[in-house]
Amino acid sequence: MTTTPISLDNPRHMVETSFRVRFAETDAMGVVHHAAYVVYLEEGRSEFSRQRGTPYAELENSGFSLAVSEINLRYLAPARYDQMMTVRTWVKEVRSRAVTFAYEIVDAATGQLLVTATTKHICVDRAGQVCHIPARWARGLQEASYSQS
Amino acid sequence: MTTTPISLDNPRHMVETSFRVRFAETDAMGVVHHAAYVVYLEEGRSEFSRQRGTPYAELENSGFSLAVSEINLRYLAPARYDQMMTVRTWVKEVRSRAVTFAYEIVDAATGQLLVTATTKHICVDRAGQVCHIPARWARGLQEASYSQS
Amino acid sequence: MTTTPISLDNPRHMVETSFRVRFAETDAMGVVHHAAYVVYLEEGRSEFSRQRGTPYAELENSGFSLAVSEINLRYLAPARYDQMMTVRTWVKEVRSRAVTFAYEIVDAATGQLLVTATTKHICVDRAGQVCHIPARWARGLQEASYSQS
Amino acid sequence: MTTTPISLDNPRHMVETSFRVRFAETDAMGVVHHAAYVVYLEEGRSEFSRQRGTPYAELENSGFSLAVSEINLRYLAPARYDQMMTVRTWVKEVRSRAVTFAYEIVDAATGQLLVTATTKHICVDRAGQVCHIPARWARGLQEASYSQS
Repeated sequence: MTTTPISLDNPRHMVETSFRVRFAETDAMGVVHHAAYVVYLEEGRSEFSRQRGTPYAELENSGFSLAVSEINLRYLAPARYDQMMTVRTWVKEVRSRAVTFAYEIVDAATGQLLVTATTKHICVDRAGQVCHIPARWARGLQEASYSQS
Repeated sequence: MTTTPISLDNPRHMVETSFRVRFAETDAMGVVHHAAYVVYLEEGRSEFSRQRGTPYAELENSGFSLAVSEINLRYLAPARYDQMMTVRTWVKEVRSRAVTFAYEIVDAATGQLLVTATTKHICVDRAGQVCHIPARWARGLQEASYSQS
Repeated sequence: MTTTPISLDNPRHMVETSFRVRFAETDAMGVVHHAAYVVYLEEGRSEFSRQRGTPYAELENSGFSLAVSEINLRYLAPARYDQMMTVRTWVKEVRSRAVTFAYEIVDAATGQLLVTATTKHICVDRAGQVCHIPARWARGLQEASYSQS
Repeated sequence: MTTTPISLDNPRHMVETSFRVRFAETDAMGVVHHAAYVVYLEEGRSEFSRQRGTPYAELENSGFSLAVSEINLRYLAPARYDQMMTVRTWVKEVRSRAVTFAYEIVDAATGQLLVTATTKHICVDRAGQVCHIPARWARGLQEASYSQS
């Protein structure tokens, strides 16, 4: 575990997941509603956790969780029903009490960049108090980030 | 508490709640997505619980909850962004282990009927087993249904 | 096209699609919110359309669409975050102006039945008037239903 | 219309709207899912438009719309089912082609600050091209911001 920021901002360490836009995610403008992308990012983190084997369930069983403390999304181009999307997720920064993920959402067929984003998460204990990320887990996040380099 | 069905299907005993359609609830057809109405019905039940004083929190504190076991919706006319909706909710039937709510969703301005629906709920204990609705609560549901007649 | 109901209620003709439960689809009871399944059914119809080649886009380009007129869901068992679900979709009935789809949603790993459902759709023209399903499309729905028998 | 930024970041010019958390907006952590707040912000903008009389429908009828180009949310405290929320919305900046809204979401009863946010919107024409905000509308946004000072 570290108390100084470590830059892990390397897209080579990213994890990808792809899925089609659901009709329910579109809005009366005919395109994907901007709030749907926030859920897509969460899908990106879920896939990151699955592929990198970060024992998130284990963390939770130990009484810790990662609460979303900040989200930032930039919308570059719209998407439509049935379009195949790819979410690329990587760890941008691990601090003693927080982790920042970065994302790109692209059209799976053309590679067109649709959204870029970051989300910041803080570690909280069962009482809801901000706390240090358990050492084993902080290490996992950092190592996972480099495991395919 | 009763083990035989009691017909409480009387619209006079209904509770009303009104709100505007959110933009995020529309879809690419330009109208409210059909899944959004399922959430509107839940808003109807929430308001029923608030107005009729049925001690639902108390029920839950006692280790019981009402799980949704069935929903049936008929869509008669579409709605659009910013339209004011009114949900009318009433108890249709109370059985020993289940309660059925009935609903009408109308345009608040014109009274046009948009959706009719019923939802059925079964009482489950902490272990997730179907059980009798606690007597005090079953009585509350029945009495509440008649309290404004 | 037919004006008398044709029973196509044969699960052998069903189409399957699988995906994981998203965290955003859970609720404070810890399980998948019941409204999320309505979106899962729509995913089932989307996959049906993709696999069976029913030219739905073509139908829409001709000025017709299928509006949801009724949904009925029975909830048999709850599901949780990250669980892999399979939606099975088939045509239950084709009438001159309406089509009914039937569904089963099961746990992909165990086959446990979670939800059964039907949805009814009516054909509407650009003016929003109920109309006959174009002959070519009604035939497609019927033939598709038997294409794997 | 202006091509240089005008600071309108004055909370006194804000518009408020209040509503209760819906059960469907909670997640398996027992609190409001972070994506739900993005929809709450949109509700804030809708109310801003209603109260300030900004003729948004008129803008759209002229062939223009405001597309969301960026969202930034900071989550300070969680909220729960049935909690009454207040969204405060104001114009932070108007540029020639873009407008930025700022927000606070607070607990309506205690005033506790739950979320702070900004959203940026760009003006696009029917062809989806970025364009100048029509003079009449840009002026409206600026004037509206000062109309209650």
